[in-house]
Amino acid sequence: MNNKPLILVTNDDSIHAKGLHKLVEIVRQYGEVVVIASEQIMSGMSHAVTIKVPLMPRLSKKEEGYTEYITNGTPVDNVKIGRHRLLNRKPDLIVSGINHGSNAAINIVYSGTMAAAMEGAIEGIPAIGFSLDDFDSEADFSHVSPYIQTIVKKVLREGLPEGVCLNVNFPKKSSEPLKGIKTVRQAKARWVEEFELRTDPYGRQYYWMGGVFENGDPRHDTDEKAMADNYVAVVPVKIDFTADQYLDKLKF
Amino acid sequence: MNNKPLILVTNDDSIHAKGLHKLVEIVRQYGEVVVIASEQIMSGMSHAVTIKVPLMPRLSKKEEGYTEYITNGTPVDNVKIGRHRLLNRKPDLIVSGINHGSNAAINIVYSGTMAAAMEGAIEGIPAIGFSLDDFDSEADFSHVSPYIQTIVKKVLREGLPEGVCLNVNFPKKSSEPLKGIKTVRQAKARWVEEFELRTDPYGRQYYWMGGVFENGDPRHDTDEKAMADNYVAVVPVKIDFTADQYLDKLKF
Repeated sequence: MNNKPLILVTNDDSIHAKGLHKLVEIVRQYGEVVVIASEQIMSGMSHAVTIKVPLMPRLSKKEEGYTEYITNGTPVDNVKIGRHRLLNRKPDLIVSGINHGSNAAINIVYSGTMAAAMEGAIEGIPAIGFSLDDFDSEADFSHVSPYIQTIVKKVLREGLPEGVCLNVNFPKKSSEPLKGIKTVRQAKARWVEEFELRTDPYGRQYYWMGGVFENGDPRHDTDEKAMADNYVAVVPVKIDFTADQYLDKLKF
Repeated sequence: MNNKPLILVTNDDSIHAKGLHKLVEIVRQYGEVVVIASEQIMSGMSHAVTIKVPLMPRLSKKEEGYTEYITNGTPVDNVKIGRHRLLNRKPDLIVSGINHGSNAAINIVYSGTMAAAMEGAIEGIPAIGFSLDDFDSEADFSHVSPYIQTIVKKVLREGLPEGVCLNVNFPKKSSEPLKGIKTVRQAKARWVEEFELRTDPYGRQYYWMGGVFENGDPRHDTDEKAMADNYVAVVPVKIDFTADQYLDKLKF
């Protein structure tokens, strides 16, 4: 009988990402860890599920307290197949990340890392997505460990409200230490896209998507503001898109 | 100078889907229509964006009041590249669908069709996703036209609140006529996944994702309940995941 918490770890930057292995290193002290991560980079895959091809997870490592699977699926596939096939019981916690790049504000909707955490909430499993505001594949994660420990310990001890997961975003490492944790709301911000037009060697036109992030939200209780002030931003996230305030107003 | 509304049409069932062409047929009477749809089926792609490969839209049809592009992107890519490259001005309306299969309840989170509508809302464009609770590629759409007309005319006339789009779901065609339109909330329902295990000709194991839809929401004002009662279900949708009720309670 094993009484240690079972912790599922995934991400969207693939099994090869530094952020994933940093997260594993931190959470191994709290329980039995199973990693189920994609072979390929799944950034920007949002809540996509694989239905056109079958999933082929393969066991890539097994040692005391640690098991690792590599898959051809998306982050959400990884949570689903973990829950329903690869794990021998419902996990006590799902942690996703540490994402290379912020998932604050509107980024949550495009993020595979956050989708995996949300899928945990849909499945009734406490889940946390961690992201660092630094896209560098060699990003410095040294300032985040104590905060991840605090948050993981609290969630393992107390759980989360039904249907709620956490979106945790860290400012990029700087010379100033982080000031603490703030519980905040998703900022209203957006990407202003730019599509760069090129011509391929056969004369066909193609576009690369790029864009500039614009935060026009003046409120002081947002994830963007907290990060700008060098706090860790924690947003409690629910998966209900209903715009309640218009239910009574919208008549046909 | 053209004063007709500019209407962007997309979906996730691809350019070949019957539901898309049904929707085009309905909305052509209200404006200049531009279709930007994927060559391949993009069901279950959620809010995924294409960042690993470039986008290669190609003009596939152009006639009076109607332009059609086929792309290698996702539904959200199609809205983005339409808005920022292919259309000569901001569209007055985005309609997505008609999806073959319901996008009520939790289905909204997996749906490429609804993600396209949500991307419209993010861009500040009135947007509506239409879905029929029938997966059949030859589904009967004959009962939905008058309701789509009513909803499209109202939205073209009045717009939608900032950041809000509509998730419109139709019951499958039956011997009973539809009873009308209800404005309702997203039901709390989920898929209980089943992964079918098979072995390929080389002895490797693989899984096909399947599942059973479970609606355990007893409330009477949900999309699932409205559809069960043979109403058209309209959910006003916002893209803010913040679980407001926990902002003050969640302390670290």
